[in-house]
Amino acid sequence: MEVAAALIVFASDFGPGPYAGICRGVIRRLAPACDILDLTHDLPAFDPRAGAVWLEAAAPYLPEAVHLAVDDPGVGGARRAVVLACARGDLLVGPDNGLWSLAWDAHGGQRGAWSLENPAWRLEPVSATFHGRDVFAPAAARLALGEAPDAAGPAIAPSSLVRVALPVARVTAGRIEAEVIALDPFGSALLGVRAGDAAAVGLRPGVRAEVAGRPAACVATFADAAPGGLCLLGDSSGWLLLAVREGSAAMALGLRAGAAATVTFAPASS
Amino acid sequence: MEVAAALIVFASDFGPGPYAGICRGVIRRLAPACDILDLTHDLPAFDPRAGAVWLEAAAPYLPEAVHLAVDDPGVGGARRAVVLACARGDLLVGPDNGLWSLAWDAHGGQRGAWSLENPAWRLEPVSATFHGRDVFAPAAARLALGEAPDAAGPAIAPSSLVRVALPVARVTAGRIEAEVIALDPFGSALLGVRAGDAAAVGLRPGVRAEVAGRPAACVATFADAAPGGLCLLGDSSGWLLLAVREGSAAMALGLRAGAAATVTFAPASS
Amino acid sequence: MEVAAALIVFASDFGPGPYAGICRGVIRRLAPACDILDLTHDLPAFDPRAGAVWLEAAAPYLPEAVHLAVDDPGVGGARRAVVLACARGDLLVGPDNGLWSLAWDAHGGQRGAWSLENPAWRLEPVSATFHGRDVFAPAAARLALGEAPDAAGPAIAPSSLVRVALPVARVTAGRIEAEVIALDPFGSALLGVRAGDAAAVGLRPGVRAEVAGRPAACVATFADAAPGGLCLLGDSSGWLLLAVREGSAAMALGLRAGAAATVTFAPASS
Repeated sequence: MEVAAALIVFASDFGPGPYAGICRGVIRRLAPACDILDLTHDLPAFDPRAGAVWLEAAAPYLPEAVHLAVDDPGVGGARRAVVLACARGDLLVGPDNGLWSLAWDAHGGQRGAWSLENPAWRLEPVSATFHGRDVFAPAAARLALGEAPDAAGPAIAPSSLVRVALPVARVTAGRIEAEVIALDPFGSALLGVRAGDAAAVGLRPGVRAEVAGRPAACVATFADAAPGGLCLLGDSSGWLLLAVREGSAAMALGLRAGAAATVTFAPASS
Repeated sequence: MEVAAALIVFASDFGPGPYAGICRGVIRRLAPACDILDLTHDLPAFDPRAGAVWLEAAAPYLPEAVHLAVDDPGVGGARRAVVLACARGDLLVGPDNGLWSLAWDAHGGQRGAWSLENPAWRLEPVSATFHGRDVFAPAAARLALGEAPDAAGPAIAPSSLVRVALPVARVTAGRIEAEVIALDPFGSALLGVRAGDAAAVGLRPGVRAEVAGRPAACVATFADAAPGGLCLLGDSSGWLLLAVREGSAAMALGLRAGAAATVTFAPASS
Repeated sequence: MEVAAALIVFASDFGPGPYAGICRGVIRRLAPACDILDLTHDLPAFDPRAGAVWLEAAAPYLPEAVHLAVDDPGVGGARRAVVLACARGDLLVGPDNGLWSLAWDAHGGQRGAWSLENPAWRLEPVSATFHGRDVFAPAAARLALGEAPDAAGPAIAPSSLVRVALPVARVTAGRIEAEVIALDPFGSALLGVRAGDAAAVGLRPGVRAEVAGRPAACVATFADAAPGGLCLLGDSSGWLLLAVREGSAAMALGLRAGAAATVTFAPASS
């Protein structure tokens, strides 16, 4: 824990404005020697499921740390604030809205959970709208200083934690009925099906496919697609990715997270 | 000053492009051990008043530091570049256009001001368009290294510093005529009236209000508002906030900083 | 090299999403003590020439470091990944698509080049779409740890490196036919001609000019232009800049990188 204690990995939906910076200030006031690694502050606002997809994608590549994530449309309401301890020594801090529920397995599984209720761990008076500043950042700072997670508040049953549910794609011979689970910064769409499962029903470089009535090329890499052309390939986290080479699939097809996307593959022999 | 000397808190309107990074490079060339905490680089361009509102909101949450802020539509013109010393040991660096004039009280009041004219503190030749790189960042680095602020240039009378003037809201029984003083990254509008003053004339959870002819719910937290619904509440800095739950008030009402906003509250008994 | 080894300056076109943060994580897993200075993650996507312009503009202001840049539309294709050693001790890492080809001179000239092919320097299995994570970030981390660049892979002839070609402006008496080579975050356009060359054919504060049929004022600084007015001046890197004071030239004229821009200067005597 010694090394991890010095590092906070910080993700949020705060965007480029001052909210993330104010949280960094809160952390550094409490823990001046703490190092902060910004993962992103562009988690999709009001969409903890898409946030969870990104936190899961990032987890295997992050050092041991206190991981702070704030994507919290229910701020000020009844949702709990939680601290989770994972296998390796990673600690997860955030709202109990499912945001961490895909990543915790990538962090080795959660082995303990506490409800963040200790008033001494908060900046009082706690505002109604900015728990990143008043609740989550101070808690992350205390954990980074080495305070024990069970000092955050009462232990809670891991089974009571909110989980996000990813849509289950319908995968049949030559056809996938999926859903856009997240958009990346280039406007490429992560479809909620694993590339390996797609390969079993037709995805293979060189195969012609169709998405939303438009032709899409199955490729191994972007470089194999025509510039401006729609393409399908496995993304860097193993999801099926719908992209436009040197363009934005989201703009080309008007996609957003939650949109349905049906892919059909031409028969291999045609 | 020893601890503060190692930290620069940096805010600007430079956006995501390379300008902020170039300033970071300038700082690290001069002061390799200096730590830089980015507050935001999304201060509203060409609007030092809104920038001042955000710097004031952030100030209570920041560690003692050299605070560098660049939001400088008058770059290259007659406006002065200044260094201000505050009560606790915080030093403020930026253009003399009012950008620091709300925050300096939050930093304990300014106790000394100097005009940044020492050529040795600049990168010569100073460009006409990028004083962040050539004037402000090098000055912040020197202060972080422990050089005395009075080496920056001649002392100036604090009374001569430019101040921004916030609009004075007209607050009468059941009615507030205010102005949007800033938009947050979610598109929520900070109205130029304190939530406490609004409470005195009708703001209270459960009360129905009207803004721009549209119904708005007075709530304690976002969680109490209807998704997509307009709502009014106190923000995390004490301003009256006009928001759309899980949406953008700025988009819903076409708001921008400087826009007028009249709020009327339904009588409590109705 | 000791000091440089501790610092990675990181630029990319990854935008605000998690991709840059994931790369930071990869670096810190391999090199926990490594310091990362973000130059920008807003390099123009799919436009290595514009990226090269910004890397050149930044180079003189950056400390000695391992410089990592990822703007890589050819990811997964035949383009090489390279490490370049420069005069002062700076090391450049990125795709061999010309991205570094303007900056390397500003870094003192490249004195050695290696193709990044050592499998031990990669995260295996290397994905088809995210070499920032799997190839470039791990290589930068190893270099920051002090590993020798010739361990990255086979030496390659510097003359074989891809170079971007800037357009050659046609500069005649009172007239410049140029091209927009990049847009800055404020929407100002860098025209592909040096301000000094423009001065030789008419650019001078006070002169009236015309761009795309619209009047533009030649000014020394933004402060000398009318708010909202089109203006021409030397930018902070020595390019001719077409700007709108407190506005966006890109929006006003519908400009994008690669657009033609013809400037005519009124005769000095008129």
